[in-house]
Amino acid sequence: MRAEIITIGDELLIGQVVDTNSAWIAEQLNAYGIELYQITSVHDSREHIIAALDEAFGRADIVLTTGGLGPTKDDITKHVLCEYFGTHLIKDQRVRAHIEQLYKDRPDVLNRLTATQWLVPANAEILENRVGSAPLMVFHKEQKILASMPGVPYEMKIAMEEQILPYIGRTTVNILHKIVQVTGIAESSLAILLDEYEASMPSTLHLAYLPKDGIIRLRLSSYGELSESEMQTWFDRLKDLTKDYLLTDTDEPLEVIVGRLLQAKGATISTAESCTGGKLGVLLNKHPGSSAFYNGTVVSYATSVKEQVLGVSAELINVHTVVSEEVARAMAEGVRKLMRTDFAIATTGIASATGGYTKDEVGTVWIAWATPEDTYAECFHLGKLRDQITDRACIKALIGLLKIINQKS
Amino acid sequence: MRAEIITIGDELLIGQVVDTNSAWIAEQLNAYGIELYQITSVHDSREHIIAALDEAFGRADIVLTTGGLGPTKDDITKHVLCEYFGTHLIKDQRVRAHIEQLYKDRPDVLNRLTATQWLVPANAEILENRVGSAPLMVFHKEQKILASMPGVPYEMKIAMEEQILPYIGRTTVNILHKIVQVTGIAESSLAILLDEYEASMPSTLHLAYLPKDGIIRLRLSSYGELSESEMQTWFDRLKDLTKDYLLTDTDEPLEVIVGRLLQAKGATISTAESCTGGKLGVLLNKHPGSSAFYNGTVVSYATSVKEQVLGVSAELINVHTVVSEEVARAMAEGVRKLMRTDFAIATTGIASATGGYTKDEVGTVWIAWATPEDTYAECFHLGKLRDQITDRACIKALIGLLKIINQKS
Repeated sequence: MRAEIITIGDELLIGQVVDTNSAWIAEQLNAYGIELYQITSVHDSREHIIAALDEAFGRADIVLTTGGLGPTKDDITKHVLCEYFGTHLIKDQRVRAHIEQLYKDRPDVLNRLTATQWLVPANAEILENRVGSAPLMVFHKEQKILASMPGVPYEMKIAMEEQILPYIGRTTVNILHKIVQVTGIAESSLAILLDEYEASMPSTLHLAYLPKDGIIRLRLSSYGELSESEMQTWFDRLKDLTKDYLLTDTDEPLEVIVGRLLQAKGATISTAESCTGGKLGVLLNKHPGSSAFYNGTVVSYATSVKEQVLGVSAELINVHTVVSEEVARAMAEGVRKLMRTDFAIATTGIASATGGYTKDEVGTVWIAWATPEDTYAECFHLGKLRDQITDRACIKALIGLLKIINQKS
Repeated sequence: MRAEIITIGDELLIGQVVDTNSAWIAEQLNAYGIELYQITSVHDSREHIIAALDEAFGRADIVLTTGGLGPTKDDITKHVLCEYFGTHLIKDQRVRAHIEQLYKDRPDVLNRLTATQWLVPANAEILENRVGSAPLMVFHKEQKILASMPGVPYEMKIAMEEQILPYIGRTTVNILHKIVQVTGIAESSLAILLDEYEASMPSTLHLAYLPKDGIIRLRLSSYGELSESEMQTWFDRLKDLTKDYLLTDTDEPLEVIVGRLLQAKGATISTAESCTGGKLGVLLNKHPGSSAFYNGTVVSYATSVKEQVLGVSAELINVHTVVSEEVARAMAEGVRKLMRTDFAIATTGIASATGGYTKDEVGTVWIAWATPEDTYAECFHLGKLRDQITDRACIKALIGLLKIINQKS
């Protein structure tokens, strides 16, 4: 079964908003055995929406739209869908009761515009939008369906999980994606290493290379043609061929793997961050349950914080400068002691040509790892763009920690 | 002049990657007076790419593609473009010299697959990809053009800024977007407040409402029909009508506004974060030059860190619990003293139903603001989803600081 997404809203087409909804929806659909064929972003324009609907129904069985369901004049999706499916709006008392309940403590919101939210297309099935006022609408067109959801990510996710996906139902198709993450090899060299493997693959199996921040994610995909065990055989061969560079055989983010490893050892971690500004700590604590292994972070942007909070000596900074092996080590050891953790990571580097640094120096980052036994440090050159440098530094910090823990155990 | 983007890659359609490129490209195009009409994401499939190219050329003058330019077998964009524009691949010695220079310290990368990167379509103009090996290709079709770029965001951005946009050139069309950000009013109530204003607007002017995390961004847009001064008149009226709720009359993120205000006052800030995990600090330090006003952050996930680093007394925590007004105040005052800053913000809240908290308690967040004169605190209920709660807490923290600073000055 094939689906398409149409995202509706001028904000997407002038760059005011990044479309994070589509990737999330795509993942859910695949898990239900539904292939997402195309994503199309269109303006809040009657003609544009209608053209996109016609094209999508020409290719897919399920069309999911997001956006354009607010109570204001710029949101026209509901009216266009009415026209497209040849119907008119009627009052829905269930939706009305829900909205009155939703805003029972906010009488100012129960105004005449909000009241337009309980007008729904006469021939649509209305599903409950538990957390918002825009109705979830399902339309039928021959054997095909269209589901319309709000564009607000939190509302859309609850709508998909609780209403739309159960409504559509799982197919019997087994879409399988299996992923290894490798590091320390160039994409082209990896492809040469896998040359014979790729040549021997059946045509129903696909291998994709996805390089980012020094990690290559290798993805094997099958759209229902292979059984789990056939897939597993091919995946095992892939793991074996890449074993010298293998980070993990899942698509989980590195911080999840690190967190699980720490938790299994009953170990804790803290970070001291200069150039990464707290991003490494945010990664480590972003998943529920992280308080089991993550104690905290000191972001030491000001030199005085390095000295007074982390206990790095002023002399060390004067002799070696803040971006140095010695200071990185002292920061890691300082935060490890301060937060009483088993492990600690410190970053100090140059993320932009400010504060007296030259363009050539930008991208230099020292990372240190303090452990119960020893402290390690390494210097990296991570590019020229601020976000690129700090994102890559976080990845390097996590890869380094993984290696240290794995070597020790 | 109209443009469209076609993003090519299975990874976008299975949800492995979020398309951040398109929003960035859209913004640049608008600044050049070029309207982005549609974004289409397609698979690494010959038929799918060709169909999308035909459709895009039917609507737009400029087609920009991203992705599918790596040296591995799954990347087919260059070959499909060759077929589409009726040409073949030839060796390009300039591209070859560039790639050999790029990898001069990495002989392992100069392999036979990387060598395929200097094969380029005979009838394409080749622009320099300064930071990567994939050639930037420009094709002509009657009066229209297609530019093909890599999908890696850092490479794509440099390609757009240095090569593609100067190649396309600015149009004389003045696409104008003006934005006010308001808070403390529901979207529907705001629309009622602006009813007459909207009714009196010329049809060439568009008003859009974009609510997120408690802020509504109101956007006035004109696609070349209005002069700057006409636009300004309408914008001034909008500001005046919304003045009771106005946060700012730019589209700048809140942290930029806060940073500028602090810098203007010569004041500094630090944060102590529990539930937000360092996100607030990352916001405050994410832009270059932030070290002028931002000293640092303590993320105090473990209670011991609240006590030993921030100096919150164990008794206070025992009596009031970690998520309380008293602890939030003590955290803010503690980090302000520790990092010797003028202002400090602290967050402590319940972001998930772990650690003995019930579902009902999830979403409760205490925020405190310490200033040279006084400390303020407020309790918020910010939803039920982890990311939603922490993102909203950061916004509330910044709005609160803005209000305090503005009241004092």
